[in-house]
Amino acid sequence: MVTPRCIVVRHGQTEWSKNGNFTGVSDIPLTQYGISQVHATANALFEDPEAPTYLDPNHVTYIFTSPRSRATHTKDIFLEHIPEKHRSQIKVIVDDDLREWEYGDYEGKLTHEIIALRKSRGLDQEKPWNIWRDGCENGETTEQVGCRLSHVIARIQHIHSIHLNQNKPCDILVFAHGHTLRYFSSLWFMSMFSSGIVQNKLVSTNFKPQTNYVGFQNITKEEAERDVPFVALEKFYYLNDNPWFMLDAGGVAALSYSHNKISEPSLMLSGIFNPRATK
Amino acid sequence: MVTPRCIVVRHGQTEWSKNGNFTGVSDIPLTQYGISQVHATANALFEDPEAPTYLDPNHVTYIFTSPRSRATHTKDIFLEHIPEKHRSQIKVIVDDDLREWEYGDYEGKLTHEIIALRKSRGLDQEKPWNIWRDGCENGETTEQVGCRLSHVIARIQHIHSIHLNQNKPCDILVFAHGHTLRYFSSLWFMSMFSSGIVQNKLVSTNFKPQTNYVGFQNITKEEAERDVPFVALEKFYYLNDNPWFMLDAGGVAALSYSHNKISEPSLMLSGIFNPRATK
Repeated sequence: MVTPRCIVVRHGQTEWSKNGNFTGVSDIPLTQYGISQVHATANALFEDPEAPTYLDPNHVTYIFTSPRSRATHTKDIFLEHIPEKHRSQIKVIVDDDLREWEYGDYEGKLTHEIIALRKSRGLDQEKPWNIWRDGCENGETTEQVGCRLSHVIARIQHIHSIHLNQNKPCDILVFAHGHTLRYFSSLWFMSMFSSGIVQNKLVSTNFKPQTNYVGFQNITKEEAERDVPFVALEKFYYLNDNPWFMLDAGGVAALSYSHNKISEPSLMLSGIFNPRATK
Repeated sequence: MVTPRCIVVRHGQTEWSKNGNFTGVSDIPLTQYGISQVHATANALFEDPEAPTYLDPNHVTYIFTSPRSRATHTKDIFLEHIPEKHRSQIKVIVDDDLREWEYGDYEGKLTHEIIALRKSRGLDQEKPWNIWRDGCENGETTEQVGCRLSHVIARIQHIHSIHLNQNKPCDILVFAHGHTLRYFSSLWFMSMFSSGIVQNKLVSTNFKPQTNYVGFQNITKEEAERDVPFVALEKFYYLNDNPWFMLDAGGVAALSYSHNKISEPSLMLSGIFNPRATK
């Protein structure tokens, strides 16, 4: 029995990530350094695909990616490192729910510029700005980000559940961004806590289920909507504080399940780094 | 400026860890598989010490280890993979505060046996046993474990702080156990949360500071007590729930600081896995 994993990958460096500009909807490409960074990561992961140390390409079922080119380019570089016979088996879904936090008025700005802007508008007089609680003016609130990421998690756990029941390996790769992936990782396991920085909100019965897939590879739109359906939620989760995670550009983290139970989503502390004994 | 890191390593497989027996104070050795597991991990970490991908031996200042032989043996195997010129510079402290949770009546038992034992004693009628909240009969409470691990964290952050102020790299390795390392990692960053599974407790003014070092390598007892002093705490932290982490035998995780600030302890989601761009 192989426990399913969700392996999240932050895109490589861009000019804006290098300089600290908040990059939400803007479609900023990888730098040359960012490209080589992702090659180095993918190479370390798939160095010998016939005797994989960290990730067996044959166990990868689906890739979910943000539509932004810095994420899809990172995904393409990863796929280049996987032999064709495995690559053609991996279904890729471009999921708009994985886009970066919509920063609204703060798009392209540096942290100190955002702080100054908010101050000039009379905000943050009692405590400093915390995006994980306060969100962005004319951009997304933390409830909005939590809602769409809770739905992505539900879709992925649904696929994991089916594979686990059939006793089939199922590693799913997720390519996205600094804020959304730290957010996504927190919701994955901290929603198990009975109290704390993860809150839950009941979903209105008027809530209209929809999928937000905007691209496909090795799978048709119809197959995607059938095999990776929208999962209706009774409630969704969102953060009210910084989860205090670090995830550098090009970084890879791993989420899984304790005791092989889908009802016990957990964080793998060592990420993807689990070399196997060879002797 | 290189941000200090605390790299935690769970010992390799033992007969008891393989079978799921709770192993606290018992001194159970590594299996042959456990030994090769740790060699594989250390080899992946230090494959080319002159061009290190994950961990530069030259940046390792201190090692802290639990006194149990499964931890010190794991530490010895790691040191074997480091060239002598670096190895002799690394100060090793055997710290009794890093021992595994004292399981008391549950030592050596399997989870289902513990649950049955507690049931036979009339416990857990309202909710199931949760070691992170309920502790162990005739063993340690969660407050006791939290107290000693909070002190280890304070000692390590004190060393990090000094090195950061002097702009010197400082990676510290910690060799310990499944429960204590997941506990330690939670306290490291979740103590930043204003509410949740991490509680804090004020320390009595009668509290007697003491160090619990029981062994030394490349450092004398006097140097250790001078350079790695007991750090008095106004309060310590402890858990009241499962942090939902996974850390397999031989696993390696990484803790650090956001924005290079000792006041912002954070978890590195990718663990030690951060391959560098080579082009």
